[in-house]
Amino acid sequence: MGSIFNIEPDDPAPDYRQLYRQAREAILRGDFPAGSRLPSSRELAAQLHTARITVVQAYRQLEREGFVMTRPGSGTFVATALTRADVEPAGAGRGLTEWGVRAARLGAGRERPADEDRVPETRPAEIDFSFGRSFAELFPYDVWRRLLARYLSTDDAMMARYGTAAGYLPLRETIATYLRASRGVTCDPRQVVIVSGAQQALDILARLLLVPGDEVLVETPGYRDAFSLFRLHDARLTGLPVDEQGLPVDRIPPGCRARLVFVTPAHQFPKGGTMPLERRVALLKWAATRGALVIEDDYDGDLRYEGQALTALQGLDSERVVYLGTFSKVLFPALRLGYLVLPPRLLEPFIAAKDLVDRGAPTLTQAAVADFIEEGHFERHLRQLRRVYGRRRTALVEALERHMPGLLAYSPVAAGLHVMTALPPGSEEGRVVRAAAERGVRVYPGAPFYLEQPSPPAILLGFSGLDEDNIDEGVRRLAEVIP
Amino acid sequence: MGSIFNIEPDDPAPDYRQLYRQAREAILRGDFPAGSRLPSSRELAAQLHTARITVVQAYRQLEREGFVMTRPGSGTFVATALTRADVEPAGAGRGLTEWGVRAARLGAGRERPADEDRVPETRPAEIDFSFGRSFAELFPYDVWRRLLARYLSTDDAMMARYGTAAGYLPLRETIATYLRASRGVTCDPRQVVIVSGAQQALDILARLLLVPGDEVLVETPGYRDAFSLFRLHDARLTGLPVDEQGLPVDRIPPGCRARLVFVTPAHQFPKGGTMPLERRVALLKWAATRGALVIEDDYDGDLRYEGQALTALQGLDSERVVYLGTFSKVLFPALRLGYLVLPPRLLEPFIAAKDLVDRGAPTLTQAAVADFIEEGHFERHLRQLRRVYGRRRTALVEALERHMPGLLAYSPVAAGLHVMTALPPGSEEGRVVRAAAERGVRVYPGAPFYLEQPSPPAILLGFSGLDEDNIDEGVRRLAEVIP
Repeated sequence: MGSIFNIEPDDPAPDYRQLYRQAREAILRGDFPAGSRLPSSRELAAQLHTARITVVQAYRQLEREGFVMTRPGSGTFVATALTRADVEPAGAGRGLTEWGVRAARLGAGRERPADEDRVPETRPAEIDFSFGRSFAELFPYDVWRRLLARYLSTDDAMMARYGTAAGYLPLRETIATYLRASRGVTCDPRQVVIVSGAQQALDILARLLLVPGDEVLVETPGYRDAFSLFRLHDARLTGLPVDEQGLPVDRIPPGCRARLVFVTPAHQFPKGGTMPLERRVALLKWAATRGALVIEDDYDGDLRYEGQALTALQGLDSERVVYLGTFSKVLFPALRLGYLVLPPRLLEPFIAAKDLVDRGAPTLTQAAVADFIEEGHFERHLRQLRRVYGRRRTALVEALERHMPGLLAYSPVAAGLHVMTALPPGSEEGRVVRAAAERGVRVYPGAPFYLEQPSPPAILLGFSGLDEDNIDEGVRRLAEVIP
Repeated sequence: MGSIFNIEPDDPAPDYRQLYRQAREAILRGDFPAGSRLPSSRELAAQLHTARITVVQAYRQLEREGFVMTRPGSGTFVATALTRADVEPAGAGRGLTEWGVRAARLGAGRERPADEDRVPETRPAEIDFSFGRSFAELFPYDVWRRLLARYLSTDDAMMARYGTAAGYLPLRETIATYLRASRGVTCDPRQVVIVSGAQQALDILARLLLVPGDEVLVETPGYRDAFSLFRLHDARLTGLPVDEQGLPVDRIPPGCRARLVFVTPAHQFPKGGTMPLERRVALLKWAATRGALVIEDDYDGDLRYEGQALTALQGLDSERVVYLGTFSKVLFPALRLGYLVLPPRLLEPFIAAKDLVDRGAPTLTQAAVADFIEEGHFERHLRQLRRVYGRRRTALVEALERHMPGLLAYSPVAAGLHVMTALPPGSEEGRVVRAAAERGVRVYPGAPFYLEQPSPPAILLGFSGLDEDNIDEGVRRLAEVIP
């Protein structure tokens, strides 16, 4: 009997721990049925040439975990018939489900210190071409404070309420009106659902629509957080390289069986093209043929500095397109408020799911945002952002032309909060990023946004957080490190 | 060929729609291979004794969806070889996954107009024994406004940031300190994760730990939103009827293979008992034996009107217990801020998952709550709530004794925001609820909280929203309708 246990001097685990593990395994294997007696600590210690206390400690651990009982004077007995299924939680790795393992893997090292980027912080950059967000300096705090205060009174029962899962109805109405006018989105206010942001919208949609192994068609380069989200759901990503006009619909592989298509037609993220009408129609036709749902992420639709935006995809086919919008870019990210416009058939399941997994968004914030839009502050704020950011974008484009003429290609649409530029072929983007950092300039590598690796060398330059002088100076220093 | 289509006069769908559906089916079945010609609209109309426009409309619909192409002058041809897999999204019902179908089913009619209850609104009750929430009248709005305003300034970059997925660190530190002192929770601030509420905490835990068919052990009566959440994940619920001391651990079925145990040890919801130490130790031992994780929902732990709370379960075994807390009850529900204390092994996957599916909670609110606690407003507010609600609870208990002596049993622990009372055996709770409503008094049926049906007749009476006179008057009227 002693032969089934042994203590390995090379095992870094303490002796009692080795013994405990082996005894636990033996019980789970069925070597010791319920009620059977384990060798006494004296016997076992002698067989294993170890101290009796080692065996006692191992047995105590087994007892604490309910594997054995000690009857004083008669010995240690196996408590109940246990199998591995009784003690090992489902799934792999640390008792996690497959979903959990994917979450842990995808999320490893992903927690952001401040905003979206994952570039490790070295010393603070003098000139940081950070992107993807609006900056606090332009936000009308006085107005916002006043709107919040309006609802912070004992007379209003709003604060005592959980709110509905779909969102605060006056905000949904305001958004519907705004989207009809500014984007040609066709929707009833009840199709507008308030969420915490694009990630939550995508997560619930994926749960409603994707089974493991389903194909999802995405743009590359593209929105990496959406890639992660779909991968979390065990989707197979098919990345279609974009050109200056976004997703080249005619190049969708004939065998593509995508359930979902994730696109940024107004202003391709991060490259910057706009999808022309013919491609939009072709995409919708393709989707209709395949029974696919198109997710239109209009992440920066409000920030267009020249020309008029095309009608949203959603406006062309409200049955087959989910429209995603956010307030994080133009109000402030910490608001955690986004919205989506759903086809009627998905409305009920989506709201039910949102209610079950998260309930509704904070009512107070929703009410303040509704008033902010309704009373014209939103339009005013947007006009100011467009003026200031438009100037900064022009400064960046001019600086690129001045300091690196003919060297960098940048996307032609004047919109958004950043410019993505290709680096000369053969240059190494990591080296450029590091060399710029040594000159006090922070720029962002393009590789994380590409599905295909290695990706063509590129960098992202956000312009919303820098004044014109800094933009020029930053590009001047950047030019010095471009090979 | 015409024989495979037919128009049913009894079918409520329009003729062209019937035809479209049948043709679509035929194409998907492979009856018309790619490139094959459909019968001309003239031929088919004649065969079916219908108008030609009917066939044309059906063909147009097929064309819009990409099934056929029309070549002017030569006819209508099947566009590409399509199979059902190309056009039907995965899963059952409206193209939803099984998860989506469960969400829609569980959520049907569940959207709440205002707070947690699902009782259909008839006329507003004069006296509403609503429960589960604190009321706006007692909240120190002036303090809250001041704290929010503090962070609403251009000098603070906080608003421009997304924040980290785990939550705002100063708030996590404050909560850890508070829980150590008030509940005996043993944790490092990094084990505290901020979520939008209990539903989000449970949803992420379920995704990390449950596979379809897994068993979950719950109290009955119990927290129905947790039941729904676990059912959404296709868990099998085992409900153990509680007694005056909460979950009777010695009556857990020997064959129970639960991965998760969901309990409310401090103040059983909704019945009101407190789990004594022996049961807590027994539960933890049972869980350790089975490799189960215990979720301790301390939903109203701050609202105790007499005596001292026991150490949290989490304080007895921080490896095996997840502690859930919320600010919705004592601050205000619309805040949408809760937290959980996780065992170290679950921390990384949980935060990764939270980041992927929802990112972080609004930083501004978190900062304001941290200061609210840190600067003593929370304790002061709690003291006031305990004083006012303690009086109201006493009033309710006295009114029950006065107006229905010996008739109703109610839970003995002076805590929380409601009392659950058993109705006399054989009485019908629905009738009592309706009869009370006719007298202008709203009370809440117990049945929705029970897993087993029919359940023992019971009603819930919330006391936090009513003054003492109304409580007495409400119970007086209620007594008239108790059989």
